[in-house]
Amino acid sequence: MLSTLEILRPRRLAVLGVGLLGASVLRAAQLRLPGVKLSAWSRSASSRQAVQGIADIFDTPGDAVRGADCIVLAAPVDALPSLLESIYSTLSADAWVTDVGSTKRSVHAAAARVFTKPERFIGSHPMAGSEKGGAEQGHAKLFNGRPCIITTTEKTDLTLVKSATDLWSAFGANIIQMTPETHDEAVAAISHLPHATASALAHLLSKKQARLDLAAGGLRDTTRVAAGDPSLWVPILLENADHLIPLLKELEQSSADLRNLLAKKDAAGIRAYLDGARAFRQRLD
Amino acid sequence: MLSTLEILRPRRLAVLGVGLLGASVLRAAQLRLPGVKLSAWSRSASSRQAVQGIADIFDTPGDAVRGADCIVLAAPVDALPSLLESIYSTLSADAWVTDVGSTKRSVHAAAARVFTKPERFIGSHPMAGSEKGGAEQGHAKLFNGRPCIITTTEKTDLTLVKSATDLWSAFGANIIQMTPETHDEAVAAISHLPHATASALAHLLSKKQARLDLAAGGLRDTTRVAAGDPSLWVPILLENADHLIPLLKELEQSSADLRNLLAKKDAAGIRAYLDGARAFRQRLD
Repeated sequence: MLSTLEILRPRRLAVLGVGLLGASVLRAAQLRLPGVKLSAWSRSASSRQAVQGIADIFDTPGDAVRGADCIVLAAPVDALPSLLESIYSTLSADAWVTDVGSTKRSVHAAAARVFTKPERFIGSHPMAGSEKGGAEQGHAKLFNGRPCIITTTEKTDLTLVKSATDLWSAFGANIIQMTPETHDEAVAAISHLPHATASALAHLLSKKQARLDLAAGGLRDTTRVAAGDPSLWVPILLENADHLIPLLKELEQSSADLRNLLAKKDAAGIRAYLDGARAFRQRLD
Repeated sequence: MLSTLEILRPRRLAVLGVGLLGASVLRAAQLRLPGVKLSAWSRSASSRQAVQGIADIFDTPGDAVRGADCIVLAAPVDALPSLLESIYSTLSADAWVTDVGSTKRSVHAAAARVFTKPERFIGSHPMAGSEKGGAEQGHAKLFNGRPCIITTTEKTDLTLVKSATDLWSAFGANIIQMTPETHDEAVAAISHLPHATASALAHLLSKKQARLDLAAGGLRDTTRVAAGDPSLWVPILLENADHLIPLLKELEQSSADLRNLLAKKDAAGIRAYLDGARAFRQRLD
């Protein structure tokens, strides 16, 4: 019987893919879960070097998960299906697997398809990150005070909800549970659309002779996330395209609404428009 | 004869309109131009209170400019024509006038129309500010290290270029000189379009049941400037509508381009799009 008071903590945690998030998981585990053994695999020599001394480094994903009871996939979302394929034959019997990806339907579908025990997979999406990626930027407190969504289906083993909750809670995150479908719809609006908007603005300005020497904080902030790594963002936007495409249409309509108010010199209409936008933004403070 | 080494500094500087920028001009003058006398007029009692003890406070704009040799208009851009009208009869013979507005064609046109000495007006646009406005937020170092555009026409008295340069340089700003037309076109792209974009995104999301509890820094940054005061921004966007409207059309096309790439699942096309956006953003760091 599992006591609700007992903290489930891994004996050996393996991280596959060591970028900002993977390195931060390793550093958070080192700080918050003293005694846990750490394994890691990464394609990149510089990423392996960034976590040397913290984790045992392995040459293949299959070797890295051997003996681990908790596996965190921290590669780009389009690499997760092949990672699942490459580890399922060497997973320990009691191992559970999660990820840190920004889309969740595809990784759950891959787990159901390629994984011998899809009920041992639970999705995780810590809402933390930075356009300044890379393992060197990883730090133990990246997840502190941030939301972490865990995604479950009717197949998810219930003990995994507690295991994943305990893991991310130990790293300081606030847990929110939802289905992969609900997750992908929600983050399309609050994460993927802002990314696409910032990129659309930056893309447009990149084709102009804009006077960047005059730019103040407004342009910098509005476009900040457009500096994010396209290797991560192309698969995210593609996997969530069904949600993102109608939102981009709405953005275009929202811009056209403002444009039409300006063309009509409708000061009261523009005022109401900006008041609504401001009230929304103030809810985020 | 005016020596180029001689610093032109006002004897008495009057600020008309005391918000974030007006209060910061007064505080910067107090810090950087010791000995200068300060006058101020503001409609708002709380703004007057914020600069009490720094400046002599007057009940009308006309009274505030009496005896001042340098006048800084720091009211919303649509209030500048009537401010010019209300002061021209009491201006000292040697007085020069500038402003801090975000659009420049309209104030120059107003100066030419209502002002007895339009050659004594020079436009200023310090590229500093914050969505957190108000006189209480004003501080002496707001302009430090920031660009300050001064706008001149063929009528502008040449000594004013030096006076304005010396004033803003004393406040730590980096001076860039251009015509009102060039200014308005340049800031449409690097300031007004980002403001409109952030507002379009915030306006769209304000109509949805967005899961703001999940939002990370990306949404906050991309929409930050949408929290700016609509009392300031409605006239700015209206006065620069001729430049902003085609830019908003381009933004809609930029979004549609990304949307079409997503619909075609064109990974290479999306990659090229995001690469261009990222390269642009990295030029701002």
